[in-house]
Order: sequence, then structure tokens, then C-alpha cells
Amino acid sequence: MQHLLSADDLSAATATEVLDTAGELANVTGREVKKLPTLRGRTVVNLFYEDSTRTRISFEAAAKRLSADVITFSVKGSSVAKGESLKDTALTLQAMGADAVVVRHGASGAPHRLAGWLDGSVINAGDGTHEHPTQALLDAYTMRARLGRLAGLKVAIVGDVLHSRVARSNVRLLHTLGADVTLVAPPTLLPVGVSAWPATTSYDLDAVLPDSDVVMMLRVQRERMGDSYFPSVREYARRYGLDAPRVRRLPEHAIVMHPGPMNRGMEIAPEVADSPRSTITEQVANGVSVRMAVLYLLLGGKG
Amino acid sequence: MQHLLSADDLSAATATEVLDTAGELANVTGREVKKLPTLRGRTVVNLFYEDSTRTRISFEAAAKRLSADVITFSVKGSSVAKGESLKDTALTLQAMGADAVVVRHGASGAPHRLAGWLDGSVINAGDGTHEHPTQALLDAYTMRARLGRLAGLKVAIVGDVLHSRVARSNVRLLHTLGADVTLVAPPTLLPVGVSAWPATTSYDLDAVLPDSDVVMMLRVQRERMGDSYFPSVREYARRYGLDAPRVRRLPEHAIVMHPGPMNRGMEIAPEVADSPRSTITEQVANGVSVRMAVLYLLLGGKG
Amino acid sequence: MQHLLSADDLSAATATEVLDTAGELANVTGREVKKLPTLRGRTVVNLFYEDSTRTRISFEAAAKRLSADVITFSVKGSSVAKGESLKDTALTLQAMGADAVVVRHGASGAPHRLAGWLDGSVINAGDGTHEHPTQALLDAYTMRARLGRLAGLKVAIVGDVLHSRVARSNVRLLHTLGADVTLVAPPTLLPVGVSAWPATTSYDLDAVLPDSDVVMMLRVQRERMGDSYFPSVREYARRYGLDAPRVRRLPEHAIVMHPGPMNRGMEIAPEVADSPRSTITEQVANGVSVRMAVLYLLLGGKG
Repeated sequence: MQHLLSADDLSAATATEVLDTAGELANVTGREVKKLPTLRGRTVVNLFYEDSTRTRISFEAAAKRLSADVITFSVKGSSVAKGESLKDTALTLQAMGADAVVVRHGASGAPHRLAGWLDGSVINAGDGTHEHPTQALLDAYTMRARLGRLAGLKVAIVGDVLHSRVARSNVRLLHTLGADVTLVAPPTLLPVGVSAWPATTSYDLDAVLPDSDVVMMLRVQRERMGDSYFPSVREYARRYGLDAPRVRRLPEHAIVMHPGPMNRGMEIAPEVADSPRSTITEQVANGVSVRMAVLYLLLGGKG
Repeated sequence: MQHLLSADDLSAATATEVLDTAGELANVTGREVKKLPTLRGRTVVNLFYEDSTRTRISFEAAAKRLSADVITFSVKGSSVAKGESLKDTALTLQAMGADAVVVRHGASGAPHRLAGWLDGSVINAGDGTHEHPTQALLDAYTMRARLGRLAGLKVAIVGDVLHSRVARSNVRLLHTLGADVTLVAPPTLLPVGVSAWPATTSYDLDAVLPDSDVVMMLRVQRERMGDSYFPSVREYARRYGLDAPRVRRLPEHAIVMHPGPMNRGMEIAPEVADSPRSTITEQVANGVSVRMAVLYLLLGGKG
Repeated sequence: MQHLLSADDLSAATATEVLDTAGELANVTGREVKKLPTLRGRTVVNLFYEDSTRTRISFEAAAKRLSADVITFSVKGSSVAKGESLKDTALTLQAMGADAVVVRHGASGAPHRLAGWLDGSVINAGDGTHEHPTQALLDAYTMRARLGRLAGLKVAIVGDVLHSRVARSNVRLLHTLGADVTLVAPPTLLPVGVSAWPATTSYDLDAVLPDSDVVMMLRVQRERMGDSYFPSVREYARRYGLDAPRVRRLPEHAIVMHPGPMNRGMEIAPEVADSPRSTITEQVANGVSVRMAVLYLLLGGKG
């Protein structure tokens, strides 16, 4: 594997290798050894056309824990890049010695185009409303760590599916790994063509919960919505928000996930976010391990 | 000591330990050895909700000289953090493996709240008009280095006390260490309740100078003032600015301090800022040593 | 040599030493060893008063490949620096332990003033429309690598000479190294006083091309132009743009250079930029090697 552009790039075997490697790296870089020399002298460029402090920092922490040098190219506020094509920026970064480019871009498909121009590795850190494969990997890692398996798990993904690259990548990867996904959303927040996805859909959260091992709440991305989509916070929370009474409908072993950042009080109630069922901070921690594993597997063998 | 939130966290013994450690680190990281491996593999996050290039860089330089990895989370311009609570941001940083969070925040008390949520160390790098304890430590270090002692020193802190976290932290720490502080300011720039501080107050700079070992000029923070506070630059400079004639009223051994950045020609005349009595660039250099000492003492023993 | 402020600081011998050192460093930091310990413990500060992601990243990559610590001080968006003089900022950075300051500034001459205040090294990374000496060095490196020599080379520098620090530094350095430069531009884009430069001038690109070993296209800096200078993109491209028919007028061995970022379709046609004659990405790669050499020669001997 040279690039990680889409959850579809990952076979079940490859995905499992990433998860296993992440687990080993998490063990090794525990209390004793906090830093591995694996990628010493390698350069990882964070090429961010959209703000995403969390994802950028997660990749930065992962790369530094493997002793890589990290260079951040934040295009927002960069006058240089304004008139420059994505291709010329990419070739410039490659010429400067980038071994991997981690790219976040507002346009779906931008990482795929980058990959066509670069000899190094390209990692999709979110493109438009399209994909965010390392998020899917860290979510799968978290489910497996908490519930012991992925095959046969019943996963409800709830909320603003329309604008969610997290949902797209999760549906693909979870299908590959044998889980059963149900998308739960109001009709206006389901994308056209969702019937072709390897997932069931439902408008009724209360009906889906009792049969779910995992409920993954999506961030409502109101910044991407016009008024037409969205009735009111109260109305949304009443129908699709996860509050304590709804949590009681879940099986006892079920976990609650959220990719962050949360709109507390909208898609998730504060007491649910902070409950022991919630895996939200585990997801963040697992994100660093999974990104270490991806960098390790993409770059590690080339030294 | 797990956190450094306020100058009040520091007993005389602890403060002295920080100053002594800073002195040793400054000696060691001189010409020969510029970098110590002490915090290798540790991650220090700079979490800045307000711009402060100087303080951020000083902590960054200190952490890197101890071989820590430094990650900067500048919230301004971060769309992610907009809707996210301070608590969720903090838990995210902790989950990513932050061993210490250095926080600058516009709201007084924010670092204390952070400390309640985090297992790692929190260092207050300035909260509102409240505290800036590492500034007080570097000022005490500079006084001790120049004048040989702190106990019994007469320190005049002059100018915009009302908006100054530097003044608040200095008054507390200097009192702990046995110095006598006089606050000199126009009545409009003294805070309500100043009579309860362990310091004398005066409106008359010329009367205070002859009996001062140290005169610390504060930055006039006009950006925090309405028109009512402040007559004019010329009027302010005439009554509370430190110019060459005023410096001649000081004892021969007395030193002139300023936390920077200076408004040259307002609270301090250029020829005073650049004179041999001025410790302004020494304060900056000592700032790095003192912050190394704080990081060392908070994190060093946990490895 | 303590500073690199202008191409005029470089004698033929010193410039050749930089190019030779860059060549050695490029060889050493190939596949096997990606990082040299030479500047371990040294601090390089990137002090950028103007956006320049490319140049900043190039210096950052160069410094990190020599194991220096890099601190970026981006003044834009720094409230602190607003009221602070260049001198006070410089003294602050020095006090924090900066061994070298790489400075980009909108005002011509700013790096020279910095150099007067600092004990460490100052490297001019572009000042106003004045100079950009490391760009001239990387261009000379690229010509020598492609064509085997510099003495006697015929170099055409084409386009917006008026606003180009790249042109100014190249003319000086190429003259020092024995190349013959012809500046080709419309009269409105040639600076007053160009007749005193060690270069020929021409308004006729087609006439100059057949006798050129190198044609260096300059970025048209429309952001620095009023309407008076500039007729239209189409008109400019027709008269001064390098397209495929014009490239056929060049000798077979001639190369095409551009400092980037390109305005594809204005000063250079896409098929020319991407042709094997184009050295544009080589220039970027060589930029890292040349900046490593400059840092090495300025700082390396002081350890």
C-alpha cells in the first residue's frame, strides 16, 4: 500500500494489519518508551486547505512519536498558494523532500489527484464530504478494543449523514470488516443514492437502539447547511439527539461514540458524553495510535 | 507540585528551588551542551486562546531545549474549537498524550478549571488580568541575579496595574520571597481591592524612586482601556513614564525592568530601555531558563 | 561570513564554497542518511513579516535536516509585535537563544538593520523588492548542475524585473560568477537605474532566446502593480510569455527556470513548465540543499 485515500483501499486483511499494528505501537509507546526511532529523518507534511486543529495535531503527534520531522503547510492565510495549483504545490512539497503528505481539502477527490502526481505517500485526512479513512480506522479500533470483535457488530450511525465523510468512510470499512451498519437520520440529512450503500437506513432512532452494539453520533454540521435542512436545535435534539432516556434503550454492553468536536446538547447530551459508555476520549487516543500505524506501514518499509 | 497556576502555588522553598534549578540549567545549556535529553518523548502542548508570540516561543524554546516535543494549538483561527468547550478541548489534548498543557486564556481562572480536568500538568501562561506566574519567577530570577538577594529588596511596580497579570503575580511571589513592593499608578489604573494586597500604593513616582532597588515598568495596555482611564500619551509619560531624569533619582545600584513588549516613549524612554541598568533582554533570556526549570520540575520526575 | 544579506556579500570563492557544500550535503542526505547531527541544539528562528510558505518551509526543512530546532515567528496575526519595533523583536529573539534569524520583510533593508543589532547570524529570505540571495544561490546551483558551469553562460531573465528581488540577487551573483545576464521586459517593468546593473537589457524576447543557455521566467507580481503597468494577461503572454513556439527558438541544451509560484498561462505556458527542459522542481529541491549549506557554513563552525 502506497497511499491511504479511501476506506475502500483497505481489504479486511490490510485493515486488520493496521489495527494490530496500532495496538502494538500503543503498547510499546506506553510509560517506558514514548518515542520510536522508526521514521527518523523522514518528513511528513501536513497540507491543510481547511482548518482542522484536531486532525492536524493528531497526525503531528503520531509522526513525532515515530521521530519523523513534521512540517505544516496551512494554506489558509498563505498568499503563495492562492494562485498556485494543487499540482504545483504538491510537486513543490515533494521536491522539498516530503516522504508523506497528509492532506485535508474542501474538495472531494483532491487527495486522489495528489496521489497521481507524487512519488511519496498521500494520506487523506478528510476531503469535502467524501472520505476520512483514518477516522474509520480509529473507530474500528475503538469498537474492537471495547467489544472484542467487529464481525457481526450492529452499528447505528446517527444524524447528519449527508455532510459526513466520517459516515462514508465508516460504512465502507465496517462493511469490509463484517459489521452491520444502520444509518439513522431525517430524510433531509440522508444523501441521494444512500440506497446503494452497504447499509440499512432508518428514520426512527428509538426503534434502532435496542438492537445496537454501537451507536455513533455524528456532529451536526450546521455550517454546511442552509435553513431548509434544519428545523431547530430543540426539535433535532428531541428526535435524533442521544440523551439519557435513549441510552437506557441500548443493550447493557453497547458503547456510545462521537468523532468530535461535539455539539453538546444537540446531537448528544452532556451526561451521555461523559458517561462510562462513551468512548469519545478513547477515540482521540486511539487516533494517534492508528495514525502511527498508518505512517509506519506506508513509510516504514522504505527506509 | 503538579501544576503551576498562580504565584500563590509557590512557597518560598518551592520558588527558590525553581530559581536554583533555572540557574543550573542556564549554566549547563551554555556553549557546550545546548540540549538536554531530560524530557525526550514528552509532549508539551501550547494551548493559546490569545495571541502571545513571545510567551509561546519562550515556552517552545524551553521545552525543545529539554528535548520535549512541542505541539501548538492556537485557538484563534481554529474553526474546530469555536463550538467546543474548554473541557472537551482539554480532554482531547490529554487523550493525544499531552504531558503538560501551557495555557494562555482571556478568561481569569481558565487554567484552574483545566487543572481540574487533566491528569497531566497545567502551566498558566497568563489568564485574563489575573496571573502570569512564570513571568513573576523570571523577574525574581533576574532581580536575584543582578542584586544578589530578594529578601528585603524594595521593588516599585509602576503603571497600568489594573490590567496587569504581571503585577498581580509579582506582588504575590515577591511578598512570599520577602521583598517589599510599592505599586505606583494613577488612581484610575489601580484595581478595586488593592488595599488588601501585600503591597504599599503610591501615586507619586518621583517620591518612590530614591528608595527603590528595582523599578518595574508595566506595559500600558491601551487595548484594554476605554477613553475614561487614560488622558494622553504625553500626560501619562510626564507623570508615570521612566525617563533619564527620573532614572537619576534611583540609587546607583538600582535596576530597571519591563516585561515587554515596550511602548517606547510611553511608559519608558528609549534611552532608559537601552541603558546598562535595564534588564529587559536578560529577562527574556532568563524566561527560557525559568520555564525550563518549571517544565523540568513538573515533568522530570514522572518518567 | 556571519550573515547572508545580499548576493553582494558573496565573492566568487564564497559562492562556490556554498554551491560545493550544497552538493556534498545533497549527496550525503540521500537515501541512507536523511539527517545530519551538525546543528543539534542550535535554534533557527524564521521571522516572517510577510507570508511566504514556500521559502519558510524550505528553510525549515533545511534546518531540521541538520537537526536544528526551528521556531517560527510569523508576525502577521501577532498582536504582540504590532506595537513593537523590529529592534526589540530582534533582541527578544536573540535573548531566547536564536543562533540564526531567517527574516522575510516587506521593507528593503530590514535584514541589514537586524544584522546590526544581533550577535547571531541573519539570513535574508527576501526584503521588499530588494534581494533574495538564497534564491540566487539555488538558481546558480541548478544552472551549474544542469549545464556544468557558470562562467560564460548566457542567462535571460524575463518579465517583471521591476518588482523582483529574485532578479536583483540573480544579476549580482551571476555577474560575480562570470555569467552574462540579459534582462528582458517591457519598459514599464524595468526599474529606474537598471542601466547601472551589470546586465544588458532588451524588450524583445524572441531576439534574445536563440543565444540563451538559460531562460529564467519571473513571476508577474500583479499584487504589487497598479493598472498602469499592465495591459492584459493575454497581451503580456503574447509578448513576454514563454510558450512552446518560443521554446523552439532556444538552443537544444538550454534550460527553462522559474522561481515559483508560477502563473501558468501568463508568464509560462503549462506545457513548457512541465517539459524536460524545465528545472522548476529541481530548483525547489536544490533550494533545500543550498539553505542547508548556508546554515552549515554560517553556524557550523561556531559549535
